[in-house]
Amino acid sequence: MRNPLSDKVIDIKPSGIRKFFDLVQEMPEAISLGVGEPDFDTPWHIREEGIFSLEKGHTFYTSNAGLMELREAIAAYLKRRQRLTYDPAHEVFVTVGGSEGIDVALRAMLNLGDEVILPEPCYVSYLPCVQLADGVPVTIELKEENEFKLTPEELLGAITDKTKILILSFPNNPTGAVMSRSDLEPIAKIVVEKDLFVISDEIYAELTYQMDHCSIASFPGMRERTIIINGFSKAYAMTGWRLGYAAGPEQIISQMVKIHQFAIMAAPTTSQYAAVEAMENGDEDVQMMRNSYNQRRRFLLQRYKEMGLQCFEPRGAFYTFPCIKEFGLSSDEFAARLLKEEKVAVVPGTAFGDCGEGFLRISYAYSIEELKEALGRIEAFITRLRAESR
Amino acid sequence: MRNPLSDKVIDIKPSGIRKFFDLVQEMPEAISLGVGEPDFDTPWHIREEGIFSLEKGHTFYTSNAGLMELREAIAAYLKRRQRLTYDPAHEVFVTVGGSEGIDVALRAMLNLGDEVILPEPCYVSYLPCVQLADGVPVTIELKEENEFKLTPEELLGAITDKTKILILSFPNNPTGAVMSRSDLEPIAKIVVEKDLFVISDEIYAELTYQMDHCSIASFPGMRERTIIINGFSKAYAMTGWRLGYAAGPEQIISQMVKIHQFAIMAAPTTSQYAAVEAMENGDEDVQMMRNSYNQRRRFLLQRYKEMGLQCFEPRGAFYTFPCIKEFGLSSDEFAARLLKEEKVAVVPGTAFGDCGEGFLRISYAYSIEELKEALGRIEAFITRLRAESR
Repeated sequence: MRNPLSDKVIDIKPSGIRKFFDLVQEMPEAISLGVGEPDFDTPWHIREEGIFSLEKGHTFYTSNAGLMELREAIAAYLKRRQRLTYDPAHEVFVTVGGSEGIDVALRAMLNLGDEVILPEPCYVSYLPCVQLADGVPVTIELKEENEFKLTPEELLGAITDKTKILILSFPNNPTGAVMSRSDLEPIAKIVVEKDLFVISDEIYAELTYQMDHCSIASFPGMRERTIIINGFSKAYAMTGWRLGYAAGPEQIISQMVKIHQFAIMAAPTTSQYAAVEAMENGDEDVQMMRNSYNQRRRFLLQRYKEMGLQCFEPRGAFYTFPCIKEFGLSSDEFAARLLKEEKVAVVPGTAFGDCGEGFLRISYAYSIEELKEALGRIEAFITRLRAESR
Repeated sequence: MRNPLSDKVIDIKPSGIRKFFDLVQEMPEAISLGVGEPDFDTPWHIREEGIFSLEKGHTFYTSNAGLMELREAIAAYLKRRQRLTYDPAHEVFVTVGGSEGIDVALRAMLNLGDEVILPEPCYVSYLPCVQLADGVPVTIELKEENEFKLTPEELLGAITDKTKILILSFPNNPTGAVMSRSDLEPIAKIVVEKDLFVISDEIYAELTYQMDHCSIASFPGMRERTIIINGFSKAYAMTGWRLGYAAGPEQIISQMVKIHQFAIMAAPTTSQYAAVEAMENGDEDVQMMRNSYNQRRRFLLQRYKEMGLQCFEPRGAFYTFPCIKEFGLSSDEFAARLLKEEKVAVVPGTAFGDCGEGFLRISYAYSIEELKEALGRIEAFITRLRAESR
């Protein structure tokens, strides 16, 4: 029998997170600080709207682009929070999580050989989705000394005649870095000047600490060049509902909806009804969870300080990205030994790009009790490592 | 600003169904026999399982491939109904409806220029999904005189050195055609002999009348060459839940899961809990709905006979595909005039391929009352057309 597979697909590496979780699964007694999802159940009033919709028999397809009521709520949210205006009928559509939005945006925009700039470390899907869409990923290694922000110099250095898209993802998974208005301004200027497009993954937009999120779409000339990807998973603790959205200029959104219509049909109906409730009455829940994440964030940073573990201060998402270079172990080795010896699971930084070597992603989407216990074990582990190397 | 779009995507035609529904939307008082989804709400005990899962706080991601409990239930179903054995851990995964399964199968298997044979008329997604995956669609025009089945001669005539995949979709949307074990046997032989693969869209497998569904995967040498696509939308009236599955050899399924993991992450959690209930306790509901569709099917065929409208007898799905060639109008013209003059919406056959010219897709996923009223209007319309042409 001949080879049934596409060459392109065989070449795509499986997710490094996944590889690590296969290890973790073999050790069910371990404490995991590895997962990239909120530890909160979806707020009850949002679940209740999902339940009501099922009771009422709303079990049919919605329109391909999603319930108009939801698209209107999304447009109102973007107006209220980012002062961005999108036409709910033609410039917003509902996706199966942020993941589908990124995949469909790349499929709608890339021709064979177009280059896509990926500042790394970043979420594990971007690179394979670029490859699947026949694009050429061009990575930029973000630096801890720049607080893992993208600098104008780094961007300029990566642009070639073939560059078409920049994928921006701030607040960032895995570093927790954010980019402020003044950080983004020179980036936006370069994007306009070089006639590029931006896929801006803003899934953590509601989870910033000490500052508000700023979308690159809000700079002059950028609205027409930006596809905003966002969703309900992180802000409203709705990961399992698989619901996100994309907003951008009609020219691109209409083509994305065409792909979505053929490849997916429509996002899940129950989730859409629940999401309307989240958008309209979820602000307090978001505030409560944000406060809770912030408390945990400060707890982790304090504990890292106490144990002498170097860590850049993350101001967004729910991840810390401590540096473990002092121990002379690779990220993979460190994480594997920590799991084996102390039964604490964290993700090696290399799962998010080669430049994640020497770092770990430690999530704080866990209760203070779990964090306390896990951090105690990490402290014991690094104390032992230091003793060994003496 | 340069063109933001992929050439490939611009070339893909929007769905012909969609175009027609835009017309229908402007006439809300029309009776529609156009939609391709069950008119039943999801059975209550299945909805209830979704509700329970929300009450219990099951609002998190499942594993990428789906809940193991659901994969086991799917494997048990395929064993029970088709006598096919799949390993739930490695040969089955849960998708966002049948649509995603087809898209991901093509993405996993096609290299640039590989030919995919599409017997038409067929569901509107296959052709654009082949194009998006860089494949070359090669259509076969199925014939009413063959009851819209694929014949061995037709298949042989379409195979070239570049052929890699055959997409089979029986019971068929839009014709309602089915292929029996003896119809499929020579097709399977050719597929093995020519070293092809089959994506078998069996989404209507539970909706057959007077005979049981037979999967092509059950023929010698075919299990390793077949990806079965199925789901919950049609059999259990669960369209809005967006839940399907793919089953096939591990070599292909593992690559499909890789794409699914990056592009979609996981199927909706609430839907997966409900689907376990559907698989385990949904047989009676399926039987009830099947009986109901069959009653309507016979009603439509009887009425067509009374009004002298030629129609091949469909034995699956919930569509009839009457021939309107005698009226000398194109399918588009016929459907547009029927909508305008009698306010009945049906889909022109050409939405499902050029060879649908001269036919209409009339769904019977509607109550007998609606069907009665609509058929009365259709009779009035064709009586008028016949009078005009005299």
